[in-house]
Amino acid sequence: MRYFISDYSQGAHPDILKALVETNFEHTDGYGMDRHCENAASMIKQLIGKPDANIHFLVGGTPANVITIAATLRPYECVIAPHTSHIYMHETGAVEATGHKIYALDTEDGKLRPDMIQGVLDEFEDEHMTLPKYVYISNTTELGTIYKKAELEALSKFCKNNDLYLYMDGARLGSALTSPENDLSIQDIANLVDAFYIGGTKNGILFGEALIILNDEINDHFRFYMKQNLGLLAKGRLLGVQFGALLNGGEDSLLFKIAAHENDLAEKLRNGISDLGYDFLSDSCTNQVFPILPKSKIEKLHDEEFLFESWSAVENPDDFAVRFVTGWGTSDDDINALLAALK
Amino acid sequence: MRYFISDYSQGAHPDILKALVETNFEHTDGYGMDRHCENAASMIKQLIGKPDANIHFLVGGTPANVITIAATLRPYECVIAPHTSHIYMHETGAVEATGHKIYALDTEDGKLRPDMIQGVLDEFEDEHMTLPKYVYISNTTELGTIYKKAELEALSKFCKNNDLYLYMDGARLGSALTSPENDLSIQDIANLVDAFYIGGTKNGILFGEALIILNDEINDHFRFYMKQNLGLLAKGRLLGVQFGALLNGGEDSLLFKIAAHENDLAEKLRNGISDLGYDFLSDSCTNQVFPILPKSKIEKLHDEEFLFESWSAVENPDDFAVRFVTGWGTSDDDINALLAALK
Amino acid sequence: MRYFISDYSQGAHPDILKALVETNFEHTDGYGMDRHCENAASMIKQLIGKPDANIHFLVGGTPANVITIAATLRPYECVIAPHTSHIYMHETGAVEATGHKIYALDTEDGKLRPDMIQGVLDEFEDEHMTLPKYVYISNTTELGTIYKKAELEALSKFCKNNDLYLYMDGARLGSALTSPENDLSIQDIANLVDAFYIGGTKNGILFGEALIILNDEINDHFRFYMKQNLGLLAKGRLLGVQFGALLNGGEDSLLFKIAAHENDLAEKLRNGISDLGYDFLSDSCTNQVFPILPKSKIEKLHDEEFLFESWSAVENPDDFAVRFVTGWGTSDDDINALLAALK
Amino acid sequence: MRYFISDYSQGAHPDILKALVETNFEHTDGYGMDRHCENAASMIKQLIGKPDANIHFLVGGTPANVITIAATLRPYECVIAPHTSHIYMHETGAVEATGHKIYALDTEDGKLRPDMIQGVLDEFEDEHMTLPKYVYISNTTELGTIYKKAELEALSKFCKNNDLYLYMDGARLGSALTSPENDLSIQDIANLVDAFYIGGTKNGILFGEALIILNDEINDHFRFYMKQNLGLLAKGRLLGVQFGALLNGGEDSLLFKIAAHENDLAEKLRNGISDLGYDFLSDSCTNQVFPILPKSKIEKLHDEEFLFESWSAVENPDDFAVRFVTGWGTSDDDINALLAALK
Repeated sequence: MRYFISDYSQGAHPDILKALVETNFEHTDGYGMDRHCENAASMIKQLIGKPDANIHFLVGGTPANVITIAATLRPYECVIAPHTSHIYMHETGAVEATGHKIYALDTEDGKLRPDMIQGVLDEFEDEHMTLPKYVYISNTTELGTIYKKAELEALSKFCKNNDLYLYMDGARLGSALTSPENDLSIQDIANLVDAFYIGGTKNGILFGEALIILNDEINDHFRFYMKQNLGLLAKGRLLGVQFGALLNGGEDSLLFKIAAHENDLAEKLRNGISDLGYDFLSDSCTNQVFPILPKSKIEKLHDEEFLFESWSAVENPDDFAVRFVTGWGTSDDDINALLAALK
Repeated sequence: MRYFISDYSQGAHPDILKALVETNFEHTDGYGMDRHCENAASMIKQLIGKPDANIHFLVGGTPANVITIAATLRPYECVIAPHTSHIYMHETGAVEATGHKIYALDTEDGKLRPDMIQGVLDEFEDEHMTLPKYVYISNTTELGTIYKKAELEALSKFCKNNDLYLYMDGARLGSALTSPENDLSIQDIANLVDAFYIGGTKNGILFGEALIILNDEINDHFRFYMKQNLGLLAKGRLLGVQFGALLNGGEDSLLFKIAAHENDLAEKLRNGISDLGYDFLSDSCTNQVFPILPKSKIEKLHDEEFLFESWSAVENPDDFAVRFVTGWGTSDDDINALLAALK
Repeated sequence: MRYFISDYSQGAHPDILKALVETNFEHTDGYGMDRHCENAASMIKQLIGKPDANIHFLVGGTPANVITIAATLRPYECVIAPHTSHIYMHETGAVEATGHKIYALDTEDGKLRPDMIQGVLDEFEDEHMTLPKYVYISNTTELGTIYKKAELEALSKFCKNNDLYLYMDGARLGSALTSPENDLSIQDIANLVDAFYIGGTKNGILFGEALIILNDEINDHFRFYMKQNLGLLAKGRLLGVQFGALLNGGEDSLLFKIAAHENDLAEKLRNGISDLGYDFLSDSCTNQVFPILPKSKIEKLHDEEFLFESWSAVENPDDFAVRFVTGWGTSDDDINALLAALK
Repeated sequence: MRYFISDYSQGAHPDILKALVETNFEHTDGYGMDRHCENAASMIKQLIGKPDANIHFLVGGTPANVITIAATLRPYECVIAPHTSHIYMHETGAVEATGHKIYALDTEDGKLRPDMIQGVLDEFEDEHMTLPKYVYISNTTELGTIYKKAELEALSKFCKNNDLYLYMDGARLGSALTSPENDLSIQDIANLVDAFYIGGTKNGILFGEALIILNDEINDHFRFYMKQNLGLLAKGRLLGVQFGALLNGGEDSLLFKIAAHENDLAEKLRNGISDLGYDFLSDSCTNQVFPILPKSKIEKLHDEEFLFESWSAVENPDDFAVRFVTGWGTSDDDINALLAALK
């Protein structure tokens, strides 16, 4: 078996596991009020250059997305997000379950641009409609694309001018920031958005995302929202311990090393597939690869015990788009085997 | 002043008001548990040919739409509706505030068709997504178009085959059913949908909509949902009295007479505008007329104290689409004056 | 038949109905944006001596209670209310349906006092609990008792000192203010609470309550909350017309005349029942009377076609507490007949 | 430092950690659809003697409580629970945030009895009230007391007769079942309730609770509710791995060994404190001990670096009730030291 189905199919990177084992017998306070969480939060504030940022550790990406929206918006305010976004398509209406509308926009590449949002603002009239207030983007997007610095700057400026919060879902932020095409720094992001999170689950830890709130309005009574929305972990220090190990070293930390490893292998895979003459569904430059393959080839891969996801139908009925994802444990050998099977 | 801004800008048709005055001193039980509501419900059941239908009277269209969805869907189930629909665009996220997602579809004419819904069903995967379960349509649509019998039959069959509830918002149902292009009977509708309502507010009464539930699953504990969602009126008999007067005579009742009056004047207006050489935004065949007029002409109408709504920008920047609506109190004289001003 | 079952079993006082008939043919804007609502709001501001108050007209008491809470509280904040209160016992969990906890306190007489609220504040710890933020009282209470000026002053001071909003449900405010035992003015109330409403439905109009918001924080985007919570009436001017007629004359208006009429008859009934040697469940001094009667006597009243509510069991198993309510249409003759039947 | 502040202040029992380390490099499907979860579920079904039970693993107790209520109740139905219960007092209104009312009952010992619930049922009238439908109990209770077999049988029978669901919060179920006073088996519980959970977080694992649904109505689309309410863990196998290690051996498994260890040390502590002449706030027979101590003694303990919780004021103002909790890592030495300090 060769696994390309997700970047969370294995446990944790050995360095993470080691940190958990080493701290196992300590007694600490619960619910994230412990020295490990405090330490990891300090590391993040230093990394992003924002000593006053508010850091909260959450168990998963859906809690991070949904709780931040719940804590930010009043009941009559709505979220603008890409149709492809995780909150619109893959969170079982969790945002709506907290009472908020998501206004979904069609995109080519999973990215929002100011003119698209302007269109929503133009439609707004009065109290018979929800008030657009929150822009949700993800980096990497669900299609593996990334925001360039100029794009994020334009979005940020637009949001500030229009009194909109800007939030970045960073489930695969490490992969975005270590992409060969990336020109954004994590400090840039901290300067341009109101809140974002550094994904851990898809970047080598057992579970956990580090939510970073730059706008104090969003942080108001935030821990109440975490508890009410089932997001406070009793042994919260497990998140602090893992992020402490993940972020130790700042720019040279495991976070970026794992992400770069994933990207490198994905790039090799992408180039290999391209050399074989196949096209791609998306211009991904990160750890997800979306080739369009003949259905017969897909079947062959299944037969040879490669695991990956069927993604979407394409124009040619004999073809199908699939998704290969690399993880912290993916090896050079895995890539070579997959490329060999694709020949 | 000439009013074309809505079909609810005046009080009630005199016959409705008379019924209210005549019954004013009676004592009855509250919350719709009175003989007037019972009587009006009987008239509806007879009119639609469904002695076992469940009838509830509500104060407005938004309560009818939202409470029915709240009573029907489980938290993980979603609504499919046109992007232009009232519940998606003009109810301030009231459906989402009850926790349910609306999956909005772009349409040309405000109408849903089976293939569009099939596209949503095809996307559905598993518990990471909301389950499509409820199809919301309106007749007339927000663009004044109507469903032909064959169209509603196709939708109904598709919904039954795919385990979807079919609901019709009938805020302007009278206008739809008396349109010259209509081939649907109210009995047909009762056979084809799971629930619908007969709009009263836009059809000559002070307030009120008669919700008709044909599918008993939707009716389960329905009055609890009405109370919880702020939809039980203390002096509920006011709704029964008004609908009793509106529906007295069945097929020949005031409901249809008022609607036909509105349609006739709208038709006259439409033909007159067409004769003047103007185009229309929508193929409305009911009591809303959507001509595309030069902005200078629109200004002139405002100056001459015609009241109407600016609807939407169109391709030609010198033009704009507007909306003229006829109501129970609109007169032939009003139409003549408007047509004269448009010359 | 003699009706003592509620104060909303008849239509409207003739003067109210007259106003509706006289204004019926006018065209106005919808949703309460009309000159009648503006006029009625002005009358209220003058009556309470608060030119900057925010006035909203709602169709019923449950909408007024629930929408104000929804507009005021953040999701993690809770309401403190008497166990007997309408929002806790008789609104089908509508407040909880908007996501807010009600912390219910046992009371002897339906009234809250500072020490009871202090007990709740003492229990509060941290983000694992909801934050007490809103005190709900009603005047008259559900037991017909009223707040004396000193009591409301004490509550108001306590709430201000503890950063709690104070809200008064005035479904029967007219009756409270015209009680022989009352020493509160409507101006006092406007000085002491953050929001309250003047009940119309139980004070002689067809439907409607006038919500008065003194604290601008509560008023923020209030109309969005009204629409989202199904509380915007299309022909909103019906509320303005009725309240205009009800409040015309200020201190000498129909509001107080109807209420005084109800109280006078209730007082006569109470005295008569007391003279017959019966006790009462509650020290009501308003338009609800709660005598404790032998079950045999209750049966006799039913046989003689008196309509009233069985209220609650009492210690003596041969007795039961009942409720008689007087309304705008109750007559001296009705009271005499009831007293005669009780002999 | 000696820790008596909670049973979740350390990491995992070494055997649990070992299982996590040993399985770390495996690839599995996400979200609990893996062989470890399947294996642990099988072990539970065998342990409780219910091959058809539905098992779901959740990260914490609050998610287990809240998601089960959300999945079970319709919006108009309410929960009956002790005032002291976790869902009423310590989950930040999470149940109400899903729209459901909790009707809280005062208790002496944290336990519900049929006559108390009957009182709530007697009050219920009609659609103006929420319908009582779900009884929430905890075992051990928040006061460390337990349900005897006869008590649970009586509750179960009452609930069945009155169409109420019965749910048991088992955050400390291991401690309840290994109490010297216990006469309930886990098989009894599975026969008497509709759903319950086996707490892991307070019984020696890193995090996780095993929810057991015996009533298929509750299980309908349960995973949708888990995802919507932020309760699906990406690397869900971590829960299966831990519960597999915790439950290996069934009646002789680590679950019961850890619980018995905690109870034994608590019993020793309780006897020692009793011998010193102190009283207790609660008749706890499990791993929480609630002595009433002189405030001077409490201060002395703090000075000597014992960590424990101040619980509640008591009648004598010089005394205070405190709580000592034993955990999987508490040692005989810890108990001896505490007893010595209390002398």
